Amino acid sequence: MSEQEKLSIIVFSGELDKALATMNIATGAAASGMEVTLFFTFWGVSMLKKKGPKKGASTILGKMFDKMLPGGPDKLPLSNLNMGGMGSKMMRKQMKSKKVQSLPEFLELAQELDIKMVACTMSMDVMEIPKEDLIDGIEYGGVAAFLNEASESKFSLFI
Amino acid sequence: MSEQEKLSIIVFSGELDKALATMNIATGAAASGMEVTLFFTFWGVSMLKKKGPKKGASTILGKMFDKMLPGGPDKLPLSNLNMGGMGSKMMRKQMKSKKVQSLPEFLELAQELDIKMVACTMSMDVMEIPKEDLIDGIEYGGVAAFLNEASESKFSLFI
Amino acid sequence: MSEQEKLSIIVFSGELDKALATMNIATGAAASGMEVTLFFTFWGVSMLKKKGPKKGASTILGKMFDKMLPGGPDKLPLSNLNMGGMGSKMMRKQMKSKKVQSLPEFLELAQELDIKMVACTMSMDVMEIPKEDLIDGIEYGGVAAFLNEASESKFSLFI
Repeated sequence: MSEQEKLSIIVFSGELDKALATMNIATGAAASGMEVTLFFTFWGVSMLKKKGPKKGASTILGKMFDKMLPGGPDKLPLSNLNMGGMGSKMMRKQMKSKKVQSLPEFLELAQELDIKMVACTMSMDVMEIPKEDLIDGIEYGGVAAFLNEASESKFSLFI
Repeated sequence: MSEQEKLSIIVFSGELDKALATMNIATGAAASGMEVTLFFTFWGVSMLKKKGPKKGASTILGKMFDKMLPGGPDKLPLSNLNMGGMGSKMMRKQMKSKKVQSLPEFLELAQELDIKMVACTMSMDVMEIPKEDLIDGIEYGGVAAFLNEASESKFSLFI
Repeated sequence: MSEQEKLSIIVFSGELDKALATMNIATGAAASGMEVTLFFTFWGVSMLKKKGPKKGASTILGKMFDKMLPGGPDKLPLSNLNMGGMGSKMMRKQMKSKKVQSLPEFLELAQELDIKMVACTMSMDVMEIPKEDLIDGIEYGGVAAFLNEASESKFSLFI
C-alpha cells in the first residue's frame, strides 16, 4: 500500500462491537501506512468521552441525553445480545483472555498512530456534549470536514 | 471538489437518527457540487412514503407489514434509546431548538438540490408498498441501478 | 462495467435483512462482471455456519456464545420487527412467494459466481467458532486481508 492512501470512516454507532471493528480496521490501516480519519457523529461521540467527572449538559433535555448516553469507551453496550450489559461484559472478558486490545487501548493506539479523530460539532450541539468532556488531541468539524476527507480517500465506510 | 464527483448511498435503515445522518451527508455533498444518488431499500423505503391516507398492501402478509412499518418520514423511531417513541420525540424537539432541519425538511431540500432518490423495486415488491404511496419526483430501480451509480462514484456508503 | 472492477464488503451484521441486502448487492455485482470479496466478521461469521451438528466451543464462555449466536444462515433474526422470530418468518415466507432467493440459496449462488468469502480469524478466535463448523470453499484472514482487497476495490461497504 502506498503511503499517500487515505481511509475515512464515519463512526455513527456507539456500540462496543462496532467500535472494536472500527478501531481494528483503522489501526490496521494506519499501521500499514494509510492515512486514516475517523469522524465521530451521533452515538459515536460517546466513545471520545474522557474518564472521570464531566461538565455535562445544562438544559433539561440535555441532561436527559447525558443520563442515557454511555459515559465513555469502557461503558458501551453490544449492538446484539447485550442482555442488560452481561453480553458486553462477556465480550470484554473473552477479548482479554484472547489478548485482543480493549477499546480504551485501541483509542490510545490510534493516537500513537496519528489517526485523525474528528468529533462532529452538530452532534455535540444537539446532544449538548461540551468540548471539555472529550479527550484531548482530537479535532472538531462538521459534515464538510468529512466530505473533504472522503473525497480524497481510497475508500470510506459508515459504521 | 470538482463538479463531476459523485456520491451514492444505500439507505437501508428506517430509523430517524440514521436518516438524519444520511440526509446531512447527502445535502452537504450536493450543496458543495457533488452529484448524489440515494438508493432506498428495505426499511429505508418507508422514508419516502407520502403524507395522508395510503393505498397500502392487498394480501394479509402485506397488510401486516403495513401495520408494522413506519407511515412516513415523520414517524421513524430512533435506532437507539427509542424508549417507545419518547427518545425520537426528544430528539426531534432538541433538533428543532438547535435549528437543525427536520427529516421532512431535509427531504424537500434534497429534491431542491436535485439529489436523485431511487426506491428499490424488489423491496417494494416484498413489502407490498405501491408506487402510489410514495412521494413524487423519485425514480425506481433494482440493484443494477445502484451498482451503475456506485461504480461511477467517488465513494459509496451503506447506512 | 469493466471486468477488472472489484467490490469488497465487510459483513459485520448477523441479521437476515442485512444479509439479504449484502447477497443481493454481491451477486448482482458478480453477475455483471465485478470481482467480489465478502469479509465476514463478528456476527456475520454465523452466516457461514454449515448445517447439522457442530463441534462448537470448548470453554464455558465460548459455549455461551454458541448458545446465543444463530446456528446458520437459515436461523438469522431480522434487525427490525423480529418479534421473537415471527418477523423473520414472515419475511422468509413473503420472499418465497415473491420468488426472491432465500439466504442459503444466495450463498450457493455466491459460490457459483466465484465470490471470494473470507471468515475473520480474530472473530472466530474470540467467539470460539472452529473452522470445522463453517462451510467449505471459504478463505480465512484478518483485517490485513480486507484492507488489501479494499484498497484495490472500486468501492467498499460496511454492512
